[in-house]
Order: sequence, then structure tokens, then C-alpha cells
Amino acid sequence: MKNIILDCDPGHDDAINIIIAAAKSDAFNILGITTVGGNVEVEKNTLNALKVLELLKSDIPVYKGQSRPLVRKIEIATEIHGESGMDGPVLPEPTRKEEKMHGVDFIIEAVKNSKDKVTLVPTGPLTNIAMALIKEPSIKENIEEIVLMGGGTFGNWTPAAEFNIFVDAEAAEVVFTSGIPLAVFGLDVTHQVIATDDIVQRVGKIDNEIATFVKELLIFFGQTYKDFFGINGGPIHDACTCMYLLNPNMFTMEDVNVTIETKGESTYGMTVVDLLKKTGKKENARFATGVDQDVFWNTFIDILTSFDS
Amino acid sequence: MKNIILDCDPGHDDAINIIIAAAKSDAFNILGITTVGGNVEVEKNTLNALKVLELLKSDIPVYKGQSRPLVRKIEIATEIHGESGMDGPVLPEPTRKEEKMHGVDFIIEAVKNSKDKVTLVPTGPLTNIAMALIKEPSIKENIEEIVLMGGGTFGNWTPAAEFNIFVDAEAAEVVFTSGIPLAVFGLDVTHQVIATDDIVQRVGKIDNEIATFVKELLIFFGQTYKDFFGINGGPIHDACTCMYLLNPNMFTMEDVNVTIETKGESTYGMTVVDLLKKTGKKENARFATGVDQDVFWNTFIDILTSFDS
Amino acid sequence: MKNIILDCDPGHDDAINIIIAAAKSDAFNILGITTVGGNVEVEKNTLNALKVLELLKSDIPVYKGQSRPLVRKIEIATEIHGESGMDGPVLPEPTRKEEKMHGVDFIIEAVKNSKDKVTLVPTGPLTNIAMALIKEPSIKENIEEIVLMGGGTFGNWTPAAEFNIFVDAEAAEVVFTSGIPLAVFGLDVTHQVIATDDIVQRVGKIDNEIATFVKELLIFFGQTYKDFFGINGGPIHDACTCMYLLNPNMFTMEDVNVTIETKGESTYGMTVVDLLKKTGKKENARFATGVDQDVFWNTFIDILTSFDS
Amino acid sequence: MKNIILDCDPGHDDAINIIIAAAKSDAFNILGITTVGGNVEVEKNTLNALKVLELLKSDIPVYKGQSRPLVRKIEIATEIHGESGMDGPVLPEPTRKEEKMHGVDFIIEAVKNSKDKVTLVPTGPLTNIAMALIKEPSIKENIEEIVLMGGGTFGNWTPAAEFNIFVDAEAAEVVFTSGIPLAVFGLDVTHQVIATDDIVQRVGKIDNEIATFVKELLIFFGQTYKDFFGINGGPIHDACTCMYLLNPNMFTMEDVNVTIETKGESTYGMTVVDLLKKTGKKENARFATGVDQDVFWNTFIDILTSFDS
Repeated sequence: MKNIILDCDPGHDDAINIIIAAAKSDAFNILGITTVGGNVEVEKNTLNALKVLELLKSDIPVYKGQSRPLVRKIEIATEIHGESGMDGPVLPEPTRKEEKMHGVDFIIEAVKNSKDKVTLVPTGPLTNIAMALIKEPSIKENIEEIVLMGGGTFGNWTPAAEFNIFVDAEAAEVVFTSGIPLAVFGLDVTHQVIATDDIVQRVGKIDNEIATFVKELLIFFGQTYKDFFGINGGPIHDACTCMYLLNPNMFTMEDVNVTIETKGESTYGMTVVDLLKKTGKKENARFATGVDQDVFWNTFIDILTSFDS
Repeated sequence: MKNIILDCDPGHDDAINIIIAAAKSDAFNILGITTVGGNVEVEKNTLNALKVLELLKSDIPVYKGQSRPLVRKIEIATEIHGESGMDGPVLPEPTRKEEKMHGVDFIIEAVKNSKDKVTLVPTGPLTNIAMALIKEPSIKENIEEIVLMGGGTFGNWTPAAEFNIFVDAEAAEVVFTSGIPLAVFGLDVTHQVIATDDIVQRVGKIDNEIATFVKELLIFFGQTYKDFFGINGGPIHDACTCMYLLNPNMFTMEDVNVTIETKGESTYGMTVVDLLKKTGKKENARFATGVDQDVFWNTFIDILTSFDS
Repeated sequence: MKNIILDCDPGHDDAINIIIAAAKSDAFNILGITTVGGNVEVEKNTLNALKVLELLKSDIPVYKGQSRPLVRKIEIATEIHGESGMDGPVLPEPTRKEEKMHGVDFIIEAVKNSKDKVTLVPTGPLTNIAMALIKEPSIKENIEEIVLMGGGTFGNWTPAAEFNIFVDAEAAEVVFTSGIPLAVFGLDVTHQVIATDDIVQRVGKIDNEIATFVKELLIFFGQTYKDFFGINGGPIHDACTCMYLLNPNMFTMEDVNVTIETKGESTYGMTVVDLLKKTGKKENARFATGVDQDVFWNTFIDILTSFDS
Repeated sequence: MKNIILDCDPGHDDAINIIIAAAKSDAFNILGITTVGGNVEVEKNTLNALKVLELLKSDIPVYKGQSRPLVRKIEIATEIHGESGMDGPVLPEPTRKEEKMHGVDFIIEAVKNSKDKVTLVPTGPLTNIAMALIKEPSIKENIEEIVLMGGGTFGNWTPAAEFNIFVDAEAAEVVFTSGIPLAVFGLDVTHQVIATDDIVQRVGKIDNEIATFVKELLIFFGQTYKDFFGINGGPIHDACTCMYLLNPNMFTMEDVNVTIETKGESTYGMTVVDLLKKTGKKENARFATGVDQDVFWNTFIDILTSFDS
């Protein structure tokens, strides 16, 4: 049983990650969900998180976090996720609101007060995590691992940079130099878990409300990926994080140095991944390079099916 | 009557600035003092602030702020201020402690809740101010001005950069791009207010406890400036901020663009001050280039003398 | 019949490229060979070029070019190519020397004086080409195309940068911003033309002196690639350039913007290739993404076999 | 008797420097004058040099050098020097042309072939000098010193950078890291040799053609400095170089490290001068911080008067 905080900007694939985490109540003790400006504005992300939890009939508390990155101006991705940040399925309005406490303070307090170490699971820009580490550096002692979606050896937002890292590269630098164990799921692996039509059909055959919602997410998200990146389906990037926590063995991980480029003119926000061990820099991350796709999708289908009961 | 928050890392010249502010209770409503890691670690700076207030018999609340900069590792200046951060005079231990609230949160709350606009007076690295602006961007509406000591057209910590800005250049970038009115007291002007032997003697003739303390500060601080920079006395940098608030007319100010260099290899943390209007960039700061030294020192002596009564 | 200048740092794969060019005397009018510091010092590269020509019984003139990059210190790659820059086969000493004229001046003069446009074929660092363009910008009017080996969407010398571009990124910037048509063969495609054991065996069956020499090159080069990069053979990077000139259709080329990163801390020398058209920057290069390996190797074997007669 | 090469972009103050050098034929053996794109295009600078020599009835050979910087696009300063690069006085057309040889090659050949070491005196962008050092690094053994006008602890073209260095900062980096002895006359000292009305009057009283020409130069140049920089006369920047060679004692020089900033966003082209020895970097330049103005101007008047005879 792992104590986790989901830090996210839902977002289609964030929503799926929340569903996975919520479904596996035997594996995860979700202390809370924090939201961050990223895919869209933090207010919309927060509302989306609450809507997903409403659908799940879950009472996990939600804490609104950072509306802007550390140093740069906010950048959002409505091209990918639509105006609402989670266009596609229609969800009922939530019956509750986010908590009063700021997301950054929640992370600090939850980690400080937890008897067992806490695993942070950020699937958006790393602003909340960095802010917590900057404001209260001592919490790092009680963080077991940061399991994050971000980066890669190639980019999707610029030729060199992936969106989450690009949006707040300074925050990423804080996290990647923190000394906390990191498991990094970048585009190299997330582009191996594309919800092709085949997958969407398998999901479509599951007869429950959650699976139907996920199917609609995948259809919308898949369409924008086809239009925008020429990929034959939506990679459910963020879901890699909780999948890894459920079963690390399905992923191929390499211990590497990852440095965040914050000075480059054309490479700002790049995760420079030293797979060939050329730099002599100390390893600071486990970086996912591969995934057993059969195990991944079977697990995924099983989880969605589990909502039947 | 101005609502002010002193944000500092005392520090000899910070201590003097606190004394000036506290002395002029008709001019300043000091909402609180926040401390920041800089000259020395934030714990020492906090203790030093409390000691100064003890001496002043003041109950201004003190809030410990950031122990580290946004992105970089902490850098401290014990060469200049000694191990304690305020070596020289011996002060009694304080009889109270800092408040529970984090300095960053105090700034946010105090600004949010103030009926009248608040003036922030940072005399150390800009980490607390930046953190407050990052965490709660809306407070900028209720900030009247940020009156800060930092930067200059030349450096003291590197050839290009002044200590306060160098220590957290990313924080400085956040502040200088915030759109909030800024009054900037950099080395250009603070090196015009050097407490030479002559000044120290004038202070020495004032017969009260505060003046004696200040004299001892000036002697220690002056010696390190002689040793370290070859300057004939300690520039009481930070005191320019409250002096300006008391009487702006004693300073020559120019409306200029100031850009913070965060990418340069040899110029990190430089305040690039466009005095010749070469860049075409919009003015974002009033930058002090001169001071009427007679008025400055006479005011200073008057303030110290006022503690007699 | 194309007028070409081979600009190289032989180098195992440069040597193979010279052989290809020399073999196809119906396709190429080789105006001269210029050498550049890169894989090893320019003196060694020059000697190696002369040795290869000796073996080929060719009288193509050789001009020694730059011994150092524009701005950076020279960096050499004896790890890959051995002390001589072309370890492995033993070659007879050349019976002639390089020409008196500096390689940079030869490029300028040859291009200026050619009735038909000239194609430059650099397979080392771009220092000679950049120097010629800097010293005599007007030559660009008479350059048909620059067909170069360098760069890629991933690196081999650092995680982000390929050796040729890394060694002189400023020279690369001059070339890539010159406006001259560019065909770029980076690691993406050159790692598709690996001389595996299978290929080496096919070469080994050809019964002539040149093929034997090439076989020995491939064996040495392949071994260092196995040791150093964990690749199952040596990619004959440089050979892509003349192969392209012989038969462009065997390659998949994309019109893209390529920007050279010269400011980044961890990304210096990276070719930022905008395959997804994210930057909005104007296309300045045809970038090779694929190759028909059967056609490539069959052509290669045919060329080596042609020396029988 | 010093062997010197004047490398310049005349330019009002370059012209004055040529006059000083030519006047002191007992002190200087001028091997040649090379021109470089800078104040205006190299063709105009070359013509201006020839005109000045015509006036001087001198047969010193002129070699046209670089028309563009190493990496950046050319930047010119017609705001300061007028369309011709030397607006103001009217000069007769020259009766001869520049030599055939490229300026860069002349520097290489002249240095290589000189029995005694050669002093290079660049008063424009450092492109020619850098190109010579890049193309033929061995010449550095036979260079006695590079005495240059450029840089300073403050800027005139940007807030941080002086024009000559800004125009080709990469060339400056090559020169400043070459290990050759450097004497650097930047804005700190050149702004101490301003040709005020007083000086112009003294020059006006000298009754010869050269002095009259210089007077007209000073009037035009002085006016643009008044308009553009608010300075009460034209600083005859470049003249510091030959004045120093005539009599080093009139200048205050400090051994310092000077680093060229080529990565900064707002500080590109800055000479970072470590006067306070903060960086621990090795000294690589003698940097002028002061000048005895009486000696300077008296020498100047004497030189102009010497043309009477």
C-alpha cells in the first residue's frame, strides 16, 4: 500500500491516471489530488479533477495549486485537450469544491505529517512539486520517490522539449537536482502506449460508466493526436506513472543522468538523457525506455472492467 | 503613513534599515519583518532580526521565509558579515521567537488583507517576494511599490553581478517582470553612502544604546569592506530603501529598463540597466543614480539621535 | 557530371567516401580534397587522405585546411578512429604531398573560378566551409549545394550532439544560416547503414586491393563501435553523402528547419531538427530520415567490385 | 622601433590613430593597414583609409579584410560616423587602390615573415585578427602584443557591450583566449580622452593641412556624441592604442582577467573585466583604467604640430 499524491492538470490522460489510481484501492492510499496550470488554466484543471472524482463517487480531496510557472509565463495546450482541458465526454457538475488549502501547502503538510514515506506522482508541469521543495526543503526526507510523466529524448512541444517540462523547465531543474529518487516516463515510452482504434474497441466493449467515459476520452484525444502529430491514436502518457507503481516489471528502466536545459535558445526545456553515459554525470533518474504493451493494455482493460462490480 | 513589510537578511546594513524604519513610527506602519537566506542562513538572519527588535524594544512580528533560492543552491556571504551574519556588536538574546507562519505566506496574507496598498522593502535576495508572487499572483494588485536594494551597473559578487541579485537571479527576474512599480537601489548609489571614519565618529558622539550598537556595526562592517573591497568604509546599502521612503527627493532616480541576465556564462545575475535607452525595452524601474550625501547623513544622524528621548 | 570538393577528416568512413567518389569518375569531377581537424589532427587527416589516394592511384590534389575550430578548442576522436585517425589497414606511404594552398583558400578559388556550380561535400567538422564563407561570402552564389554528414535528432558525442557539429558548432551555424541548399545526413540515417558482419563478408569476397582495404577499415571501425556504442558494426556515416549524389532516390529526405544550438549548457552543438514543424522557422535543409538499405549496400558492393577491372 | 599593423575601420578616431602612427616614423614601422567591416562596410572603411593616407602622402599599403563577422550578421554604426564612415571633412579621392591580398592573409604573411615580432593594433571589430589566428594559429609565436580598442566595464552599443566587441564577440573570444599579451583600451579610459571644445580650439590653432582635417573630424564626431550619447565631445577612442605604444606611462593599466560573454541574452558581447579579482580566473589582459590627460593632449598637439615642417 503506497501513500501517493497525484499532482496533475487533467487533461485526458491525467483523468485516466486518476481512474487507475482510484480503482486500485488495495495498492494506493491517495492522500489527495493537487492541480497545476498546464494543459489548461488551473481553475479548469481543478474542475476537471472534481468531475472525474464525481463520476468515480470518490471523496479524495482536491487542492488547487499553482496557476503559473516559477519564472516563465504560463503556456497552455488547448490545441490538444480542447477549451475545457478535457473536451469530449460530458460529465455532471461536481457536487463539491476543492479544499481551501493551496496545493503546494497540501503537499508540504501531507508529506511532513505522513508516518510512512509518500510517493509523488506528477503528470503535469512540475511547478507544485518544485514550489513545495523550495518552500520546505526538509520534506525531501519523507518522499519515497517522484514518479513523473515528462520529457524524453525528443520533443512534442518544440523539436527538443516535451510539453510538461517545457512549461516550467526551472521547476523541472529543481526536481531533477533534488536528489530524490525519480522514475521518469517520457515520450520514448509514452509513445509506445497509444490507444489505437483496436484498444478503443476493447474499451468500448466494457459495459460500465467509467469505461464509457474513458472510451470517449480516448476518441477525442486520439483525434487531436491524429490531427496534430500524425499519430494513429492518443498516447495515454500519464497513465504510465500509476501503471509503473502497480507493476514496475512491465517497464524497461535505465539508470541515467537527466539534465534539464534551461539556457539553450532552441532547446529550452529539453531533458538531456545520457543513455550512452557520455557526460560522466551522476545518475539521478530511472528513465523508462520500453514497456510490455500486452501486459500494459491487459492490465488497463482489467482495471476498467473492475468497475463493473 | 505607509504600510510596509521589511524583507531582509540581517546583515549589518539590514539591521540599520530596521532601525530607521522602527524609529519613524510616524511614517511607517511596519506590518512585519520577513527573513530570507542570503548573507547567512535564514535561521541566523531570523535570530539577528529578533535581536535587533529586542534592542529596539519592538514587538514587530518576524516571519522566517525562504532558506533557499528558487532554482540555484544557496550562496552565503560570511566573508562580509561574519559567521553570525551580524558579527561585531554583542546583543542580548531575544525573549521571543519568530511567528509560526512562513514568511512567504505572511507576505501573501498581509498584502491580501490590507485595506491600503502595501509597500514591500526587500534588502536581501528576492526569493520571498518572488515566491509570494508566484504562489499568489493576484497580490500584485495591492502592492504599491517594491523598494529594493540590489543590482547596479557593476558587480560586487562577480564582476557583473551584485550579491542579492546573483544569489537568486530567477527570483529577481520574476520581480522585475511583474509589472509592479519598482524603486531600485543598486551599487551605483549605495557606494555613495559609505560610512567613513568621519561618519562613524559622528555616530559615536550620540549617547544612546541604539547609536552605540550602530557604531559597532559600522566599525565591523567597515573593516570587512576595507579588507575585501578596498573601500574606505561600509556602504550602508540597505538603508537607502527606507531613506527613500522617508524622503525620495534626496535621491536622483531615472526611469529605465532593467533586465535580469539569467543565461550568461560570466554575467549570471547581472542587472542590465539601460541608462542610455539603447534597447528599446519598456521602462520597468526607477533606478537610483545619485544621492545628496549631506541630506542622507544628516537624516541618519537625526534618526539615531531621536532614540535619546 | 558534378563538380565536387570533398572536405573531410579521414577517418574510416571518410576514406570510404573518397573511394566511392573516385570510383565514379563518370558522375563526379573531383576538384580537390580539403582536410580539416576533427577525428584527429589535420596533419594526420591529410596524410590519411594522401594514402587513400595513393592506393587509388589517383592524382586528385589535396589541400590541408583548418587545424582548429572557429571559436572552441580542438576536440579529437582517437577513441573511435585510433591514433592515426585511420587505424586498422596498413597503407603504403604516399609518394606525394599536399598542395601549398590552404584548404580554405582552395575552396574559395575553386568555387570562384568554376564555370559550373560546385557541390561541397563536407564529412568532418564544418570549419573549412564556414571559413570560406566568412572570408569570401560571395562564393555562395556559385555553390550548388552542400551535402554534409553531421547532426541528427540524437547525439553520439554528447547526449544531444553529434561529433562533427559539436566540434565546431559555430561553423555549423554559419553553414546552416548561409541560405545555401543543404542536404544533411545525420545519425538518424547513418545509423541505418551499419556495416554488420554480413556486409563485411560480402566485401571480403571481392577480390581487389581496394575492397580488401575497405574490409579492413570496416573490421577496425566496427570493433570500436561495438566497444564504444554497443552497435553491431560501424555505420559508414560519411558514405551517405556521395551515395546521395549518385542516387538521391535511395534516401527519404524531409524539408525542415535545422537550427544549431550554440548557447545551451547541455545541448551545445545540437542540430535542432524541426520534423514536426513546431517552430514556424523557415526550412533551410533537406534532412535524411531513411534509406533503402538494399539499394545502398548493393550499390556499395557494385562500386567496390568495379575496381576489379 | 616597433613593427605594427594597424587593423581598423576608419572611422573618425581610427583616422586620427593612423595619423599618429604615421607621424611617428621614428617609433613605428607600419607594415600595413588592414580594414574590417565595422563602423561602416569594409569597402567604405578601405576607401577612407586610402584617403587619409593620400592626405598624409603616405605609401603604406592597405589590405581589405573581412566584410562580415565570424558568426553573426554585420552591424554598422552610421549613426555615429555618418554614411561614408568618416563624414565631416572633405578629402580628395585616393590615387591608388588597396593591395590584392586579403587583409587576413596579409596579417598571416607579415607576421610569419617578420624578423622581429609584430604588434597588432586593432581599433575595429576583431574579425581580421581572429581569422588570422584561426587560419594560422602558429603566428601567435611571432606576435609581440595586441593593443586594441574595445570593451569596457560598461557599454555604448547595448547597456552591457561596447560596439567593437559586440559586432563580433566570437572573434573577441578567440583573441582574448589566445594567450597573446593584450593591452585593452575600453570605454573606461577612452571616455577620459574626450575632444571637448577646448581641445578642438587648440587643434584649430595649428596651421597645417593635417591638423585642419583632424579639427573637422573632431567637430563632426563631437556633434554626434553630443546628440547620441549626451557627451560633451567625441572620445578619440582608437588613438589610445598608438598613444600607449608611444608612451605607456601615461596610462594606468591593471592586469586582469577579461572574459567575453557570448551566451547572455542581454549581455552578449560584454567584456567582463575582473577588476576586483572575484573570479579566480587567470589574468589575460592589461586593462587601461586611467590616463594622464595633460600628457595625452600635449602629446597629441605636439604630433599634429609636427606636420608643419
